Amino acid sequence: MMKGALSDVKVLDLTRVLSGPYAGMWLGDLGADVVKIEVPGKGDDARFTPPHVNGFSTFFAAINRNKRSITLNLKAPEGKEIFLKMVEKADVVLANFRPGVMERLGLGYDELSRINPGIIYAVISGFGQEGPYAQRPAYDAVAQGMGGIMALTGMEGSDPTRVGASIADITAGINTVVGILAALHARTLTGRGQYIDVAMVDSVLALTPSETNRYFYTGFPNKRLGNRYIGNSPYGAFRSKNGMFILACGSDKLFARFCNDVLERPELATDERFALMVNRSNNHEELKKIVEDWSTRYTTAELVDKLLSKGVPAGPVFDSDDIAHDEHIVGVRDMLPEIDQPEVGKFHVINNPIKMSDTKTEIRRPAPRLGEHNSEVYNEWLGLDEKELNALKERGII
Amino acid sequence: MMKGALSDVKVLDLTRVLSGPYAGMWLGDLGADVVKIEVPGKGDDARFTPPHVNGFSTFFAAINRNKRSITLNLKAPEGKEIFLKMVEKADVVLANFRPGVMERLGLGYDELSRINPGIIYAVISGFGQEGPYAQRPAYDAVAQGMGGIMALTGMEGSDPTRVGASIADITAGINTVVGILAALHARTLTGRGQYIDVAMVDSVLALTPSETNRYFYTGFPNKRLGNRYIGNSPYGAFRSKNGMFILACGSDKLFARFCNDVLERPELATDERFALMVNRSNNHEELKKIVEDWSTRYTTAELVDKLLSKGVPAGPVFDSDDIAHDEHIVGVRDMLPEIDQPEVGKFHVINNPIKMSDTKTEIRRPAPRLGEHNSEVYNEWLGLDEKELNALKERGII
Repeated sequence: MMKGALSDVKVLDLTRVLSGPYAGMWLGDLGADVVKIEVPGKGDDARFTPPHVNGFSTFFAAINRNKRSITLNLKAPEGKEIFLKMVEKADVVLANFRPGVMERLGLGYDELSRINPGIIYAVISGFGQEGPYAQRPAYDAVAQGMGGIMALTGMEGSDPTRVGASIADITAGINTVVGILAALHARTLTGRGQYIDVAMVDSVLALTPSETNRYFYTGFPNKRLGNRYIGNSPYGAFRSKNGMFILACGSDKLFARFCNDVLERPELATDERFALMVNRSNNHEELKKIVEDWSTRYTTAELVDKLLSKGVPAGPVFDSDDIAHDEHIVGVRDMLPEIDQPEVGKFHVINNPIKMSDTKTEIRRPAPRLGEHNSEVYNEWLGLDEKELNALKERGII
Repeated sequence: MMKGALSDVKVLDLTRVLSGPYAGMWLGDLGADVVKIEVPGKGDDARFTPPHVNGFSTFFAAINRNKRSITLNLKAPEGKEIFLKMVEKADVVLANFRPGVMERLGLGYDELSRINPGIIYAVISGFGQEGPYAQRPAYDAVAQGMGGIMALTGMEGSDPTRVGASIADITAGINTVVGILAALHARTLTGRGQYIDVAMVDSVLALTPSETNRYFYTGFPNKRLGNRYIGNSPYGAFRSKNGMFILACGSDKLFARFCNDVLERPELATDERFALMVNRSNNHEELKKIVEDWSTRYTTAELVDKLLSKGVPAGPVFDSDDIAHDEHIVGVRDMLPEIDQPEVGKFHVINNPIKMSDTKTEIRRPAPRLGEHNSEVYNEWLGLDEKELNALKERGII
């Protein structure tokens, strides 16, 4: 059995909350040795985020598997010295402090690359390391707002709407993984590490190539379109007898198939209001009425069966409960494995979505307790023994 | 000047529409030689997606920079033979056909890895390569619906809402880049390539660790919360005099700062309805009224200034027009560079959000015309001359 793709990669993960820990988790899923460095006696802020079970944050547990936790006070000279010794042996340093914090601690890229020219130093922030917004505090909602996705999301004529998951944090985390992996490859060519700067706002903006392109084409910002899509119709969520379902006639051909084989109203396929994509977009209201006059007579399950059996793209709108009971997503794709999480017990996590045939992504360990691996890691990395560690602990260094 | 991180990596990109082309574009941004292989005389479906300028799809242009285009008929035995010769020299093959299509063409992973054991073969699909949903047609809306993000997005008590950008396609594309880069690294350890299978539904689900965790904790699917966040309040979008703005009091400390320094109503910070996070969440309606009684007296710009000057996280809700005129995003981060796109003219694209200090991501070429690089690529890769290419063209192979 092959070990993970990154089984020779050592990561020092200084991040807290969500974006950085998510990136560190994926590096761990891919097999890297990820050492999470936390403030002694306190740790990652996410440890205090509810819901807790037996005092352990399940929010924290959901995004910190496959890491070992050590404590280290980077503000103390002795702590800094220990960190620098670890940097000598590391491949990657991952941080998401406010820009300038690491530099003020004397732990900026210049210092670390002097000690280890191969080090890859990746930082995640709301707005990037420089510029007028660099020092602004960034939360996911701020980045969703400024990256443009909130203005694009929501019902027609209604308010901008937050995407119901922390996509700014998470996509910034994933993009940082891309940068780190690209830098690992570059290092095989150059022998050098480098600095990677990923911003949440940039990451959100990068999700909108089609919409941003349309803005530059028309000169006007896109309107919010609720559940429909500007380029096509019927495309999006429609009402069924018992909820909503997705119908996605992504081409004239699919629309004709829908009219002929599902609605059994072939005259609609050739109707000049609907025959071409552009006309269907313009007459989407009428089309919606036609679709829903039909679709509200059937349940979502019936509609999805009918449509798929004729080759028309369709699907249900799943909530977490539907997903948790779905044979394909859970059974075949193994996307919600149950792991043993000390304190919490049996615990479901979202599996890594990257399915590799040889070096498989894998959940090798649950999220760590604060400082759980102090002995193990400090011994492995720096050869420190229990006596030395106790002394460091007494002085508040670890 | 260093070339891109992947300057030694050769990619054969068979993908069309959005998810795959986005992945290919990022590999190109990172410096790979990405050869886009298209159906002779037709090409990527996205070439037919509006809006067009002088006959060239700007939608296509927005997601196909940094690639060279060649045409090749994979269904013809001679075309297949040419493809296999290119596979011998490639590092990565990228595809997003319906599962089974490549295998039926005799171009599955088993065949390609026999020719080139180092080949990394990455496929993107709606639901993954196997299981009951594998053959379902997948559009972004279907994957948003089944991956759970639609059920999480939207106003309280209102319908599930599509995220206003194609995040299922795009995050699947980015995750595929992660898989490819991880496999490139693994190959340095094992000498072997591998197969990577990324699904849009899995990729959407992976954006929701906090929400999925909360479902397993409570046993109930999350309600849609519009612009607020379940864990905290006031956190999200609120009304200003001229629109909306983001206020993100992510902790008790930030809330106290907001009450004391911005509202100048210190009694609210200690009010038992609001002092603690959990109470603020329960009393979010009251709190919203308090915030908006105040905030609707000021413009968004005034509010953002006031809040940031006191260290309270805040920001505007930007649309594309705001972003395009923003000095930080455009000027400092260079996120909307203008390139020369033949046919189209001066053309704005979203830059790659991964900022690397040494091997910088870069836009080296605009999106290609169909088969624009036939001569160049076939000569470089296989040594074919013009006469041979003309003969292949006459027989409809390229």
